[in-house]
Amino acid sequence: MLTRRTFIASTAVLTAATATGMSLTPMEKNKKKLAHHVFFWLKNRESKEDLEKLIAGLRTLAKIETIKELHIGVPASTEVRPVVDNSYSASELMFFDDLEGQKVYQDHPIHQKFIADCSHLWEKVIVYDSMDV
Amino acid sequence: MLTRRTFIASTAVLTAATATGMSLTPMEKNKKKLAHHVFFWLKNRESKEDLEKLIAGLRTLAKIETIKELHIGVPASTEVRPVVDNSYSASELMFFDDLEGQKVYQDHPIHQKFIADCSHLWEKVIVYDSMDV
Repeated sequence: MLTRRTFIASTAVLTAATATGMSLTPMEKNKKKLAHHVFFWLKNRESKEDLEKLIAGLRTLAKIETIKELHIGVPASTEVRPVVDNSYSASELMFFDDLEGQKVYQDHPIHQKFIADCSHLWEKVIVYDSMDV
Repeated sequence: MLTRRTFIASTAVLTAATATGMSLTPMEKNKKKLAHHVFFWLKNRESKEDLEKLIAGLRTLAKIETIKELHIGVPASTEVRPVVDNSYSASELMFFDDLEGQKVYQDHPIHQKFIADCSHLWEKVIVYDSMDV
């Protein structure tokens, strides 16, 4: 039996799933993901203009087809604690299905263009690649 | 018109959305999220037993209701590059709807129990809290 209510519920979740963050493809059921999280420290840490340029560059990455979900962030206003590093300027967090998907991203012309256009803006980058267990 | 095909498609995505990682609640449409990413360095970095204890502890956090998605990871075997930090032992990555959801998590008895049970295992923790822009 497929009621109107079930249909509405399914449609709502369909919308939610396809629009998660800047998600391009819904995450697959129970599939282990590779999270690629990069933190950028701008040379000019006080420059709003440089931050905007960096964020605009990061947004171009969304077109790379192996990225399953893309979050572009800035430090959140959570409680300041000794273990919290809120000194970075911006971050990108994306998920891949596997190592190959991450490699496609690294070598992708859009990613290479982002580096060429924006790498003069930052003085430090830290990358964490984590595989779900 | 609701065809059988539409129903199957909706159901498939419904399943995918509710089972993302250890997701408890599907992410909402276009809602900015707070990503809370924690990296742990074990005191006994070579101890598989300590790593298993830490991961088991991290899994208990999934019951905290304000966590929208939980990924527990270990360093992925991506290319070794100077910018990549793969020295940590394990990581937790979770999303919250807002600062309040993160605060509920911080103060939650399950989180406090995890710290009480497992904090003797690690020697270093780094936390990054990022708000989507």
